[in-house]
Amino acid sequence: MKNIVVIGGGTGTYTVLLGLKKYPVNLAAVVSMADDGGSTKILREEFGVLPPGSVRPAMVALSEAGETLTGLFNYRFSEGSLKGHNFGNLFLTALTKQLGSFEKAIDEAGKLLKLQGRVIPSTLEDIRLCVELGNGQVIEGETNIDVPQHDGNLKIEKVWLQPAAKANPKAIESVKNADLIVIGPGDLYSSIIPNFLVQGMKEALRASRAKKVYVCNLMTKFGETTRFTAHDFVAAVESHIGDRIFDYVIVNTKRPSKERVREYEKENAKFVEYNLEKFKGANFRIVEHDVMRVKGLVHHDPDILAQLLYKIVTKK
Amino acid sequence: MKNIVVIGGGTGTYTVLLGLKKYPVNLAAVVSMADDGGSTKILREEFGVLPPGSVRPAMVALSEAGETLTGLFNYRFSEGSLKGHNFGNLFLTALTKQLGSFEKAIDEAGKLLKLQGRVIPSTLEDIRLCVELGNGQVIEGETNIDVPQHDGNLKIEKVWLQPAAKANPKAIESVKNADLIVIGPGDLYSSIIPNFLVQGMKEALRASRAKKVYVCNLMTKFGETTRFTAHDFVAAVESHIGDRIFDYVIVNTKRPSKERVREYEKENAKFVEYNLEKFKGANFRIVEHDVMRVKGLVHHDPDILAQLLYKIVTKK
Repeated sequence: MKNIVVIGGGTGTYTVLLGLKKYPVNLAAVVSMADDGGSTKILREEFGVLPPGSVRPAMVALSEAGETLTGLFNYRFSEGSLKGHNFGNLFLTALTKQLGSFEKAIDEAGKLLKLQGRVIPSTLEDIRLCVELGNGQVIEGETNIDVPQHDGNLKIEKVWLQPAAKANPKAIESVKNADLIVIGPGDLYSSIIPNFLVQGMKEALRASRAKKVYVCNLMTKFGETTRFTAHDFVAAVESHIGDRIFDYVIVNTKRPSKERVREYEKENAKFVEYNLEKFKGANFRIVEHDVMRVKGLVHHDPDILAQLLYKIVTKK
Repeated sequence: MKNIVVIGGGTGTYTVLLGLKKYPVNLAAVVSMADDGGSTKILREEFGVLPPGSVRPAMVALSEAGETLTGLFNYRFSEGSLKGHNFGNLFLTALTKQLGSFEKAIDEAGKLLKLQGRVIPSTLEDIRLCVELGNGQVIEGETNIDVPQHDGNLKIEKVWLQPAAKANPKAIESVKNADLIVIGPGDLYSSIIPNFLVQGMKEALRASRAKKVYVCNLMTKFGETTRFTAHDFVAAVESHIGDRIFDYVIVNTKRPSKERVREYEKENAKFVEYNLEKFKGANFRIVEHDVMRVKGLVHHDPDILAQLLYKIVTKK
């Protein structure tokens, strides 16, 4: 069976895993440890655990334990002193405190959730994401980047982890042994790029013989990728791993209806345009496809994405 | 296989179940829904759930899922906004909210914990325990009785549920079909007697053909059973179910060392004396035995207790 590693975090990674787990492949998800918002922020501060909210979506995607348990894992307390906490976050926190290690907690929770694959934190160190904007302003904390407390029209010029942190050896190992590495979709600076900032990851990615695919986002995110085109997304990732890293880039061809985009307009998010001209001379293949779900949020369709990815990994 | 029903709640019931689950019997625990302290109090108030802390000990006792999961279920958060909450309580609360029923939550959690038996709330209604003391003072709330906010030398004269509540039909059913019913050990007024106060239970107990055993406490509890002898314990239970209810009463013959009792003296708890004279003419058999654990808290030894109980249930 082919080894597929999906790198990211959040809903994008959830979607890719959800589709791919139906195929006969060995799946691993390498997820960012930069999250520091909401329930995760409180648990990081009060219990000193790594961000449970970062591994939760990937675990739920890979679970074969049934709806009750995955529903429970995603359940969010809505009242009183527990308000805002995800049950899955509390679960991972209690397990971490009990077993003395976040990794062991993921393993144990993984058994219970009957994971069809592995979930690997990209680092086991306690880090904080920082960015520098075009005007020199430094923003600390993933949430402050994700839900911009700054002028969202300013470009992110630099991004780093504080303190510098080593990659999780298991993340490196999985990248080394991969046949296919899928990067994205997902919030570029707050979910995807943090994975490349851990020491050793960039080199491992460049050294890996795996086919490497970037799945481009469908919508921009104000304050992170304001006015980004598909080309900008790819360029930003390349600037953190190195040129010519990708073998394939999957771009979406279907434009969502005005209605579906309306909710996004409130947050200044726009449909990601792509211009084939811009990709001229690129060293990767562009897979143009309608990859959008037929309704609801403007997200990728897990099955379409998985089909394209499986085709790529099995191609001689 | 014989059907054994253990009635109570808390550590006493935990101990009985822990011992009996090693025997080839069908086990059910009927537990009081009167608990309203600590984590349970908060969850009852904020989420309107039945008291999760009441079913937790029985579930942990009956679990065959291994130490990690039972340890997690008992894990108590020690910091920040979650301080004092048991993970198991949060688990049952989240499941109840998700599935819409406390009973379903117990069932689902039971599958996960691989219960070797059933845990049955004695009622499914939201009740509060009340007592009236010798001086006419009324105390509301199980915790206020359990950790006395009153003069602990006063006798409890009356005990009732507010509002009146029907027994859980499954509790009645289990009592009907039992071959052996074990009552106690456990806090007399705050864990044991509340089970008999739900409508229909007393009658079901009297009508059941099961052999009925009372396991007498080893220590008194200040404010609940101050200066009680074994005879007083039995009399108090009988006064709530009716005379001649028991076939057997298990009393302890071994006196704990002064050292072991020292911790209890702080709380004005004393070793339970028994006087055979007092039991003269009783309609039950008295099983005199050393049933005490060899060290630690003055609790029953689960294996000794189970051995005695199994002997009773299998006796022709």
